Amino acid sequence: MNRFDFCVPTDIRFGEGQVECLAKEIGKYGSRVLLVYGGGSIKKTGLYDKIYEVLKDYQIYELSGIEPNPKLSSVRKGAELCKKNDIDVILAVGGGSSIDASKHIACAAFYDGDPWDLVLDKTLATKALPIFTVLTICATGSEMNPGAVISNEETKEKLEISLPMLYPTLSVCDPTYLYTLPPMQTAAGTADIISHIFEQYFQPNDGAYITDRLSEAALKTCFKYGPIALKEPQNYEARSNLMWTSSIGLNHLFTVGKGGAWSVHPIEHELSAFYDITHGVGLAILTPQWMRYVLSDNTVARFAMYARNVWDIKEADDYVAANAGIDKTEKFFHELGLPGTLTEIGIDDSQFTEMATEAVRTSGLSTRSYVKLTPEDVVKIYKMCL
Amino acid sequence: MNRFDFCVPTDIRFGEGQVECLAKEIGKYGSRVLLVYGGGSIKKTGLYDKIYEVLKDYQIYELSGIEPNPKLSSVRKGAELCKKNDIDVILAVGGGSSIDASKHIACAAFYDGDPWDLVLDKTLATKALPIFTVLTICATGSEMNPGAVISNEETKEKLEISLPMLYPTLSVCDPTYLYTLPPMQTAAGTADIISHIFEQYFQPNDGAYITDRLSEAALKTCFKYGPIALKEPQNYEARSNLMWTSSIGLNHLFTVGKGGAWSVHPIEHELSAFYDITHGVGLAILTPQWMRYVLSDNTVARFAMYARNVWDIKEADDYVAANAGIDKTEKFFHELGLPGTLTEIGIDDSQFTEMATEAVRTSGLSTRSYVKLTPEDVVKIYKMCL
Repeated sequence: MNRFDFCVPTDIRFGEGQVECLAKEIGKYGSRVLLVYGGGSIKKTGLYDKIYEVLKDYQIYELSGIEPNPKLSSVRKGAELCKKNDIDVILAVGGGSSIDASKHIACAAFYDGDPWDLVLDKTLATKALPIFTVLTICATGSEMNPGAVISNEETKEKLEISLPMLYPTLSVCDPTYLYTLPPMQTAAGTADIISHIFEQYFQPNDGAYITDRLSEAALKTCFKYGPIALKEPQNYEARSNLMWTSSIGLNHLFTVGKGGAWSVHPIEHELSAFYDITHGVGLAILTPQWMRYVLSDNTVARFAMYARNVWDIKEADDYVAANAGIDKTEKFFHELGLPGTLTEIGIDDSQFTEMATEAVRTSGLSTRSYVKLTPEDVVKIYKMCL
Repeated sequence: MNRFDFCVPTDIRFGEGQVECLAKEIGKYGSRVLLVYGGGSIKKTGLYDKIYEVLKDYQIYELSGIEPNPKLSSVRKGAELCKKNDIDVILAVGGGSSIDASKHIACAAFYDGDPWDLVLDKTLATKALPIFTVLTICATGSEMNPGAVISNEETKEKLEISLPMLYPTLSVCDPTYLYTLPPMQTAAGTADIISHIFEQYFQPNDGAYITDRLSEAALKTCFKYGPIALKEPQNYEARSNLMWTSSIGLNHLFTVGKGGAWSVHPIEHELSAFYDITHGVGLAILTPQWMRYVLSDNTVARFAMYARNVWDIKEADDYVAANAGIDKTEKFFHELGLPGTLTEIGIDDSQFTEMATEAVRTSGLSTRSYVKLTPEDVVKIYKMCL
């Protein structure tokens, strides 16, 4: 196992009705709250009213309309609101987009220049407002980690800012809030969770046996409960298992002791930066093809291990097992109702070269990922997805 | 999954050489350090000198001689030292005993009465000194949780105090410090880790699929690396996997979403309270017999699941599978060189009734454990261990 630091201070309040705790917990940090959320879904479900009821003793300001793949312009607005209204706490209600925007706002609130500067140079971030979250979709794991991905609509860049000060202080994870998710969001969210675990699993192991076994446990959970959550949206067991797996799926637990950069996310980030598609949809399309592209004598043992330990495939031959595991993965995404090709979502090859170049330039793809990829490799993977 | 709160703020610094970080990290809390440790082993290995070298700019006071099953008298001494010398930080160097004593001292330092009061009434603990740890044996998981077990030598009670304020601030986990452990300590430590996971695994599941799968991952890791660490004491991969599994084995990760009290620890605690035996040795003796005693139509499915998922036992019949898994468990402890009976360690039946009564009185054995046990049941289990 490689040397590592592990510290996840976020206070998770998991289960039905946990939102009530906010009345007391936020008060430890102040009374002026910036409520950050997306579209109107929390108004339809009643959660918006519930938040106001729970926080009746607080002064609430609002930043609504946070988009999927949250944009720099929203962060700018949020930072202005914090400065102008002397905000004490940011409360993100929603999924990864609202939480990621809130994280960037939390540190931008203490910075005089443009918030994008902080993404390009993390050392400029000196302080952050405390962030509380109420999760309404499980996918990104942002509720229990210090990272945020923000899209700069002017430069078409989609980059991450990750700093220990950006761990949410407290996250409310109530599986019943997932009951009303549209099926496509349940499916794409599940694909996102799975992809996060893959990104950590498909890396050199460095002797971190425990970490790989934990990852397999989490993958099995997604494969078991994803279809159940789709078929029975109000199945508490399915929703709760997926929700907790999502949170621990990206809080570094599945990466400790291992090394390397992510493989598929950088390739997908360009898709959603260029075409604004749902992140999980892009991941579901790309992942099986990426697996096929990088399968080789160097990687087959790990893909076969995945097939055997997660899918219970008994084939003795490594290549046969590995390919069966990849097929299972592809079939799983298909059965979740996710698109299987870029063509299906209206993306053609016209920008592949530009996207591939960006993907490699802005990530560890060519230097530290499981199988190192050039822009030419990435173009080939995009083409396999047509 | 049941409702749960999860917040583990301890900063883990894992890997060779991480002790160096203490020079900077402790300084955030002050300059007056109480160094708490056990016997002379850290002097023999050079770790004692290393600590002084790293903390050359600090003022260090010492409490040495912390015994296995740490005693109230040590805690009293430690609390006095803290008050008298205006201690800022407690640094525990050792295993669970030194860390547990340090936790109790940390809150006793702010309490005017006898430290045992805090064990009997947790609400009396209002504040605690920050606790740093350097782990030299992996077993109890105390380095990443808020609990401490203290023995009152006057009343023969062995009780736990657990409070969020007692999470260590930072724990250094350097697997190379385990290289010099005597084989019996490696074996007993491994049994302790395994038992912690069992205590959480053998509880009603309540739909917490992910939690059970994570526990199985951890159990497999112990069964794989325990024998390797014994045979090759300097095997970094084995030591590091066991060390990390130990930490996450008792930080609530394997219990979230599930309910119930522990089953075997309360029975063992009386053994070590009455006879001062090594905790892990008592657990290794008791566990297989406890399993056999509680195996029934109500529990066989879970024991069979354990056998199949952890030991890869293929038997279709649940009872056959369950018994095969229990046999494997017993054989494993035997192969680690641990005693298999109480007789072997000089314990006869003379105090069984008294111990059984205490075990039930001071725990959830009769009310909330996996299979509820009366004192008569516990006596029968002790007798099976003769």
